[in-house]
Amino acid sequence: MKCTLISIGDELLIGQTVNTNASWLGEQLNNLGFSIVFGAVIPDDKAEILNTLYKSSLNSEIIIMTGGLGPTKDDITKHTLCEYFETPLVLNPEIEKKIIYYFQSVNRPILKSNKDQALLPENCTILPNSRGTASGMWFEKENKIYISLPGVPYEMKGIMQEYVFPKLLSKIGGEKLVLNKTIRTHGMGESFLAEIIKSWEDDLVQSEIKLAYLPSPGIVKLRLTAIGINNERLKDKLELATSKLKDLIPNEIYGYENATMEGVVGELLIKKKCSLATAESCTGGSVAKMITSISGSSSYFNGSIVSYSNDSKINLLGVKNQTLIDYGAVSKQVVEEMAVDVKIKLKTDYGISTSGIAGPGGGSKDKPVGTVWIAVSGKNGVVSKKLTLGYNRERNIHVSSLSVLNLLRLELLKI
Amino acid sequence: MKCTLISIGDELLIGQTVNTNASWLGEQLNNLGFSIVFGAVIPDDKAEILNTLYKSSLNSEIIIMTGGLGPTKDDITKHTLCEYFETPLVLNPEIEKKIIYYFQSVNRPILKSNKDQALLPENCTILPNSRGTASGMWFEKENKIYISLPGVPYEMKGIMQEYVFPKLLSKIGGEKLVLNKTIRTHGMGESFLAEIIKSWEDDLVQSEIKLAYLPSPGIVKLRLTAIGINNERLKDKLELATSKLKDLIPNEIYGYENATMEGVVGELLIKKKCSLATAESCTGGSVAKMITSISGSSSYFNGSIVSYSNDSKINLLGVKNQTLIDYGAVSKQVVEEMAVDVKIKLKTDYGISTSGIAGPGGGSKDKPVGTVWIAVSGKNGVVSKKLTLGYNRERNIHVSSLSVLNLLRLELLKI
Repeated sequence: MKCTLISIGDELLIGQTVNTNASWLGEQLNNLGFSIVFGAVIPDDKAEILNTLYKSSLNSEIIIMTGGLGPTKDDITKHTLCEYFETPLVLNPEIEKKIIYYFQSVNRPILKSNKDQALLPENCTILPNSRGTASGMWFEKENKIYISLPGVPYEMKGIMQEYVFPKLLSKIGGEKLVLNKTIRTHGMGESFLAEIIKSWEDDLVQSEIKLAYLPSPGIVKLRLTAIGINNERLKDKLELATSKLKDLIPNEIYGYENATMEGVVGELLIKKKCSLATAESCTGGSVAKMITSISGSSSYFNGSIVSYSNDSKINLLGVKNQTLIDYGAVSKQVVEEMAVDVKIKLKTDYGISTSGIAGPGGGSKDKPVGTVWIAVSGKNGVVSKKLTLGYNRERNIHVSSLSVLNLLRLELLKI
Repeated sequence: MKCTLISIGDELLIGQTVNTNASWLGEQLNNLGFSIVFGAVIPDDKAEILNTLYKSSLNSEIIIMTGGLGPTKDDITKHTLCEYFETPLVLNPEIEKKIIYYFQSVNRPILKSNKDQALLPENCTILPNSRGTASGMWFEKENKIYISLPGVPYEMKGIMQEYVFPKLLSKIGGEKLVLNKTIRTHGMGESFLAEIIKSWEDDLVQSEIKLAYLPSPGIVKLRLTAIGINNERLKDKLELATSKLKDLIPNEIYGYENATMEGVVGELLIKKKCSLATAESCTGGSVAKMITSISGSSSYFNGSIVSYSNDSKINLLGVKNQTLIDYGAVSKQVVEEMAVDVKIKLKTDYGISTSGIAGPGGGSKDKPVGTVWIAVSGKNGVVSKKLTLGYNRERNIHVSSLSVLNLLRLELLKI
């Protein structure tokens, strides 16, 4: 079934909010076998909403709108929906009760604008919002389904998962299936990777599998898509292609689908019963933040020392002053001492460390911006690696963090 | 002048890539006075690209496309553009030279797919890409401007800034001006804030200023929009409204436009000649990462101790074992000791700390998930604050990090 996603809000058009709702909806719907044919971003404007609803209905069976349902004055979506579906706004006493209860439970005063959210179009099915006060709405008109949801991601996702997905799934009985498999790689650029896997890619055409390269800083995702009727056959085809690729680039593939580097490393640490500490200079806490983004990471992660000054490298970690004088903070010697020291200080099985010039300032001829050293100290001694990155601070910090976690991953696979 | 943004790529529709390009373009164009009327996300599909180009031209003077120009096989945009603009692909020897030079300078082998990127539509103006190998293209047809750019954000932004913005700005002489001012607040939810500033908001209508609330976790941005001809008059109107709001919520406004909490705090630390260290438990490095995302932060930030275990709180920071036994790790007493201790350990003027239950696991009846203590130790002694947040781990970490930086900001304003 074809879907169109309509995102409503001036803040999206002028870029004050990034449209993560559309990405999330696209991903979820695609995984369930729906086909997303168009995405529209439009202003909080009655004529534009009406026009886009009409045009979308020509090309899609399902139209999902997000945004424009908040309690403040910049929202007009609800009134426009009433016009499009030719229905009045009526007070829904049950929703009103829920809104009042919600505000009592979080101990906040209730305002008129909040109560007004119980005014809803008469001919829609209400999709209750257990996380906020703006209800979702499900309309049907001329065999098309229209769904309107609040723009707050947390609330929108809740309503989709509790009500919309189950309802939609019951509609797609005999349709063609679209199966995707995403393979995540680290350590090779897009063009270089494409050259290495060229013959494998050529074989995909015969297997009727489509391939897309999805590069982002430090990562290239490969998305395989197979379309057909038999679920098991499609799955087998994707598995076979994946296993052939694994033979070609065994070290570069770190995970599948939505796996994250920090999640994969966390699982390995649990499996190998190892604990971890980090010593960060140029990454400034980014590695620790990635690791602790995983719920339950406290079972293997003891902590981090972010030693952002030479002084703190000496006093907190125990790096030798002489090493800093002889080789400078951005060096193999210092980053290896950091990894060894933090492992001892925090009494862990593994210590990982970073030291580099994230930029845009601070570079020299010998050590230009983007020069980063990373190290892992653990059961097989110390390994370190020099990275030569670019000029973008944010990107350098991110790629360095990913790389040191990958170096740890490869070390953990050896024990 | 009206603009439409077209983002090309299956990966956007199925949510494997978040459409940050459209946000960035929208923000930049809006700031320059262009009006973004529509955003479209479409698949790598010839018919859909042709159709969307045509429809966009009915409603906009400027059409900007991103994506679909990479070296790998999933790209078809360039051929479709040749069809739409009725022009052949021809080899551009200058671009070919640049591509070869680029690969030599980064010391990577050059592939045929890279060289093919020098094949470009004959009747376009080429927009050189100094950061990659896919050139941008500028077409004009029936008084409309069409711009096609690579989808890699870093490359797209480079081409926009070097070539497209200057060229576009020369086109908007006598148009109406749209001025925006964004006011950033922390510490009040959207509905509550709306109630407090209601009378101010009502006055805006008379001043012909539009207001939008843009809530995100821990932050509500207020966007004021004024439209007119006289630039100075519009600026004055926005300044007056802003200064009136400042009287109403002096502690909540932390910055304007694209200011970040970490940037504002960094500037204050420089101005007051103070240094900073952080001790993080539940935020796990997130506060340090925010601080060090600012280039030059090493001049005021000495480092962080991420004490993720009780052991590390005692050994690395010097928190008393008895305090942990008596009050638990998530307590006023522990978080205050952490802030005081890290300030001493890292020899700084200020120490800030966090300890809490980020969730989703780890809560108890007395201290449910979302209970977080934050503290600041500095020139006026120690202050601390309890936060009562929700159940979302990522959000709790982010809001806690913002809150402790804001507590520091308010303390720095007192000295």
